[in-house]
Amino acid sequence: MSFRHVVTFRFVEGTTPEQVQAMVDGLRELPEIIPEMGTYLMGPDVGINADSWDFTINADFASQADYLTYRDHPEHQARIASLVKPILAERTSVQFTY
Amino acid sequence: MSFRHVVTFRFVEGTTPEQVQAMVDGLRELPEIIPEMGTYLMGPDVGINADSWDFTINADFASQADYLTYRDHPEHQARIASLVKPILAERTSVQFTY
Repeated sequence: MSFRHVVTFRFVEGTTPEQVQAMVDGLRELPEIIPEMGTYLMGPDVGINADSWDFTINADFASQADYLTYRDHPEHQARIASLVKPILAERTSVQFTY
Repeated sequence: MSFRHVVTFRFVEGTTPEQVQAMVDGLRELPEIIPEMGTYLMGPDVGINADSWDFTINADFASQADYLTYRDHPEHQARIASLVKPILAERTSVQFTY
């Protein structure tokens, strides 16, 4: 069984590509810091559907417990506060198993 | 390069587990109908975060063209109309490459 955490973001008006890249760079440091993390994919919307949101993160874990370690890890929370929240207008998330 | 289509749903109040299962069963027929589809994962939210949405679909394709074949396929569109739309309150999607 795998556990996947899926997030979609809509950024605030005026968010720059540099701010998005800084978020990506900061988050991509996490797998080296949090060994409980599995495959960690993210990226900006490619822009082919007018109603699509701006960005998604798909994070895989071996268990729900490993996801919770990531969710609550202080290095993750610090990046959410400094790099994600300032550019975040709307967010959805779903956690599911497959 | 892989192309991933990510969707999050919030269902309308009163949606039954049977309606969700009928949607899942209908969508899961698609990979046999649409050979351009790759890995097709979906599931209900596990319920550990109060602000999570209800359901997600993560569909992988070898290319954007293959995704568009899926998106616009009449058998997909028929299931959206009959099985998804009736229970859909809100939807977000992002298409990204990795």
